Amino acid sequence: MKVGIINVTGYAGMELARILHRHPEARLTTVTGRSLAGQKLGDAFPHLRSLDLTITPEIDGSVDVVFSALPHAASAEALGPLVKGGVKAVDISADFRLKSVTDFESWYKVKHPHPELIEEAVFGITELHKDKIAKTRLVANPGCFPMGAILGLAPVVKAGWVEPAVIVDSKTGISGAGRTSDAAYGFSELNDNSSAYGLGGHRHEPEMTQELSALAPRGEVSVTFVPHLVPMTRGILGTCYATLTGSHSQQEVVGLFREFYRDAPFVSIAGKSPSTKQTWGSNDCLIYPTVNERKKRLVVVTALDNLVKGAAGSGVQNMNVMMGLPETMGLEQLAIYP
Amino acid sequence: MKVGIINVTGYAGMELARILHRHPEARLTTVTGRSLAGQKLGDAFPHLRSLDLTITPEIDGSVDVVFSALPHAASAEALGPLVKGGVKAVDISADFRLKSVTDFESWYKVKHPHPELIEEAVFGITELHKDKIAKTRLVANPGCFPMGAILGLAPVVKAGWVEPAVIVDSKTGISGAGRTSDAAYGFSELNDNSSAYGLGGHRHEPEMTQELSALAPRGEVSVTFVPHLVPMTRGILGTCYATLTGSHSQQEVVGLFREFYRDAPFVSIAGKSPSTKQTWGSNDCLIYPTVNERKKRLVVVTALDNLVKGAAGSGVQNMNVMMGLPETMGLEQLAIYP
Amino acid sequence: MKVGIINVTGYAGMELARILHRHPEARLTTVTGRSLAGQKLGDAFPHLRSLDLTITPEIDGSVDVVFSALPHAASAEALGPLVKGGVKAVDISADFRLKSVTDFESWYKVKHPHPELIEEAVFGITELHKDKIAKTRLVANPGCFPMGAILGLAPVVKAGWVEPAVIVDSKTGISGAGRTSDAAYGFSELNDNSSAYGLGGHRHEPEMTQELSALAPRGEVSVTFVPHLVPMTRGILGTCYATLTGSHSQQEVVGLFREFYRDAPFVSIAGKSPSTKQTWGSNDCLIYPTVNERKKRLVVVTALDNLVKGAAGSGVQNMNVMMGLPETMGLEQLAIYP
Amino acid sequence: MKVGIINVTGYAGMELARILHRHPEARLTTVTGRSLAGQKLGDAFPHLRSLDLTITPEIDGSVDVVFSALPHAASAEALGPLVKGGVKAVDISADFRLKSVTDFESWYKVKHPHPELIEEAVFGITELHKDKIAKTRLVANPGCFPMGAILGLAPVVKAGWVEPAVIVDSKTGISGAGRTSDAAYGFSELNDNSSAYGLGGHRHEPEMTQELSALAPRGEVSVTFVPHLVPMTRGILGTCYATLTGSHSQQEVVGLFREFYRDAPFVSIAGKSPSTKQTWGSNDCLIYPTVNERKKRLVVVTALDNLVKGAAGSGVQNMNVMMGLPETMGLEQLAIYP
Repeated sequence: MKVGIINVTGYAGMELARILHRHPEARLTTVTGRSLAGQKLGDAFPHLRSLDLTITPEIDGSVDVVFSALPHAASAEALGPLVKGGVKAVDISADFRLKSVTDFESWYKVKHPHPELIEEAVFGITELHKDKIAKTRLVANPGCFPMGAILGLAPVVKAGWVEPAVIVDSKTGISGAGRTSDAAYGFSELNDNSSAYGLGGHRHEPEMTQELSALAPRGEVSVTFVPHLVPMTRGILGTCYATLTGSHSQQEVVGLFREFYRDAPFVSIAGKSPSTKQTWGSNDCLIYPTVNERKKRLVVVTALDNLVKGAAGSGVQNMNVMMGLPETMGLEQLAIYP
Repeated sequence: MKVGIINVTGYAGMELARILHRHPEARLTTVTGRSLAGQKLGDAFPHLRSLDLTITPEIDGSVDVVFSALPHAASAEALGPLVKGGVKAVDISADFRLKSVTDFESWYKVKHPHPELIEEAVFGITELHKDKIAKTRLVANPGCFPMGAILGLAPVVKAGWVEPAVIVDSKTGISGAGRTSDAAYGFSELNDNSSAYGLGGHRHEPEMTQELSALAPRGEVSVTFVPHLVPMTRGILGTCYATLTGSHSQQEVVGLFREFYRDAPFVSIAGKSPSTKQTWGSNDCLIYPTVNERKKRLVVVTALDNLVKGAAGSGVQNMNVMMGLPETMGLEQLAIYP
Repeated sequence: MKVGIINVTGYAGMELARILHRHPEARLTTVTGRSLAGQKLGDAFPHLRSLDLTITPEIDGSVDVVFSALPHAASAEALGPLVKGGVKAVDISADFRLKSVTDFESWYKVKHPHPELIEEAVFGITELHKDKIAKTRLVANPGCFPMGAILGLAPVVKAGWVEPAVIVDSKTGISGAGRTSDAAYGFSELNDNSSAYGLGGHRHEPEMTQELSALAPRGEVSVTFVPHLVPMTRGILGTCYATLTGSHSQQEVVGLFREFYRDAPFVSIAGKSPSTKQTWGSNDCLIYPTVNERKKRLVVVTALDNLVKGAAGSGVQNMNVMMGLPETMGLEQLAIYP
Repeated sequence: MKVGIINVTGYAGMELARILHRHPEARLTTVTGRSLAGQKLGDAFPHLRSLDLTITPEIDGSVDVVFSALPHAASAEALGPLVKGGVKAVDISADFRLKSVTDFESWYKVKHPHPELIEEAVFGITELHKDKIAKTRLVANPGCFPMGAILGLAPVVKAGWVEPAVIVDSKTGISGAGRTSDAAYGFSELNDNSSAYGLGGHRHEPEMTQELSALAPRGEVSVTFVPHLVPMTRGILGTCYATLTGSHSQQEVVGLFREFYRDAPFVSIAGKSPSTKQTWGSNDCLIYPTVNERKKRLVVVTALDNLVKGAAGSGVQNMNVMMGLPETMGLEQLAIYP
């Protein structure tokens, strides 16, 4: 099985290369990148020097599956012809996540290059859409924030146990911003520093709203989402707040989560408050729901590695399902701690 | 004016020494510490070597004002006789914050050593209780989390503009845990790592509830408070979520905050999302309120240095007011950035 | 092949468990620990929850190979009977590294529990002693600092190209101090902070002296070694300074290194100055020699992960060689970057 | 006394503004910046909002003293006319540090705009050149690395106690690179990472060579200098290695240092190994010399804040001396720890 990565030079692209290098069924045969085209992958990124590949401007040769880690719009533009030419694709960008092209164009301020492919694209949370992913040729991998937020709220939203207005307060490591030359992401600016951003509305909110609303028995879920930058390289800790509709106990809620994720190899209902580093480099999502019965308050904490379960890892998980391979293939590596 | 610090060897105690060293009216004459008694202050803590003081087991000689940075219960025990002997006191511990001795004993699992002093103690948020602080002999300095949360919500709670159920999601630097030998606070455990804690109930919640409820026109405010550890040394970023009762605009809310803190030299209503490092080493609290009118959602972000405005700095601010000095004396130093 | 880990609860022990979990020929069957005995491994350390093992006070059942990550003296005491009972052993502690029992007892201030095993123990730098490791039943894994220092200087010392007085200035991540409850290793103390230590003499210096002197054509090498704590979790950057005896060019020196490590799968002569994170979680050692011909100055920079190539990874590498397996088995994982 | 800062928008410029704000005799009246000209200082940098100044493209109005924090060449170009017009100047850039214009042009690859001013410029280590600084109109503030290296070696070099070949291994926080948009200085690249750079020769080496050689009784000192990036915002830890010419004891060497810096208010001979954070935000330089008599090896560790004693703080110290004010004025603030 030959695999290509479009835009290997960002953090998600690099991480795809790292994971695919050890995948027993996938052979990485071509990697693209604009500014570094012509360089050996191992010269540009020394930790990938075991991969004997040269960065090319475009996909080189035929592939069975392609990942795109390009920015939005550019990604759909590159994937359109490939998908139509029979290549299965996992899009790490935002282009095929929102079912409404109007919403996409309003949030991303750009015309969608291939709106005709949106309908068949499957939102890539394997835990929710495994059957559809197995049959599609185009997976829209979710944003890093929605991955944790949706996994953390899906069981109670689907069960109708919470009021529709939910709050997601996420703390992300800086690699979520990508390999950027923006001075605001410099070490001296962000080290020992925390801040909220996107307070006027963040592009990952409509993904959460779309997916949670689709699960809710009684229509739309309203999500207040505030992302925060905290000084770590990897990891997203999401704290989700909801109001319980009835008098559900801690035990009932934990039981609901365990049942919901019974067959999900990468989701683990934690016995105590999880920390992001427990997922460093692994495809795990740790979920910890807690109930304050007196206040009817549900707080769900989720932890994952934004570049693995939040991007490249779940991308490979989706590829596995799409290609009929075991869901966990190539993703068995434990988290690196400390 | 002679000043003493009980337990100078913790982070709040050290920070009091640092600030008082440059205070034009206060002369630090005695500092106590148990394990390091007998050592020169500058041998134990090289950054304080300009202060020519020896750590003693008890307050040495007469003082006009005393700060206690002891743990709870021990603090009240040490302060009781001093206050009764005519020394003015600022208690950095939790002992005199809660007006209900039952609440105190239930949250802190210890018998209160001097319940008879609780009534006269004033909760030390200068911005709210300046007049009372000017007349008291005992200030109960607030917890580091309540400082930001109460300042961030006080204007809208007092105006009756928000529903009583509020959420406070705080991200704290590790120095909030004090100078501890607990392995869980080791560098390797916490670096590049984030987690939530206190999910079963944190001791700073009743302070928030007490103070905000006292401000609310219609009785009790219900606070859901979740603190998080993020990998920075100093700083607390608090994100407060409330539901607006009416259709208040962003502009109205900002106007309300500006008016409320018109005479507060250390509170600044920020023009954009603040970051904790903008307050490093200073006594500032930055507040940034944002409104989503469609969702009737208010989000207030607050940033402060947990060891300064969250402890030692506000302690000195309270001392200034208590002693009839200008509120800002000795606290004019700008934040150190980056 | 059944494998046990004595003292899985420190960072080196945990890391052995992580690596062995994915080793195709080794089955981890027993892990010991004192304070956490009786706990499930995954309850104590959530990132290891896929390993269905309970921590026991002693090795449980028969094993073919055992790793000891106990402190010095305790390690030899535990390994003595096992080795004599026919179990092959890799000792991560310092007990069998120094060939002189007098030196050991003088540096470590303790009587050696099994001096009779010192002679047969092989110093575990696979790149230097592969043949002997293949035949021994006891490997003394080197200290984390000596690994980089010896690999970085061995080629030029063996070739007689440098004066005998060398300097090793190492910068280590904090995990090198282990999972400790010492307040001096707290996050708030070490974050954003650097310092030198061991200036009166560090225990890893005699290892460097012993191994480099054994390679030197003309007797003893004199090592000045100064370790430094820098605020990162993993990684050792070693900067080695030597004076060239002749007029060797940059190109000649690089050629010497490439030739020396031609068959070493985990040593890479870097094309530009390496950084520690390029080895995060991998068993690689990156080496970058530079020559200033005018000053006859050689500077060699080495980078490795102190818990992998500096401890658990090289331990597994040695186990592979000792058991007749391919040297790289179970160690192919790429570094995780960023 | 009216003071201006040219290029307030870099880290050294900002730090000058922070320090001068609290200086009792200096009034900051004008600050320049190119990209941010027209903005209020407090809008661009919230921690400076107490300074009611607008950033202008050029110095606005007459000043008595000017600081330039421009890059090299641009700095001399801006200062030339001002100095000739009677304004006293402290140049934070490298333009007037090297006495040889040939050396300057060879290291910096640019033609010097005002070579005629080099001779009268005084190298700004107050501890060495106080008398000359008191009489000059132009101070060339040293580089951040040379400050620690020269202070750490000056006493023994001047006394002729060490061989001429010395090694300086420095570890710097990232703010030394300035407020840059270079992707290589991004948080995700540098966090939890260390590396050496400038191995082919760093521009601060000729400053060290020039100043130490001028002190040496027997001609030129040869400096091998290797700077390292370590993941902290501020601070330089310098480890200097020299070979003692005679059998000087630890006690003699410490005595020499104490005597040499007897009248230096900002230099402190530390009683134990210092750490960089003990100088955070202060103008202190901590020096810790250690001797290994058997090896005739001297190791001197120095710690300072690269933006204060390594730039803005020593700049203000020089200004004080140049203007006839007490050396310590405005610089008494203690380090902020932790």
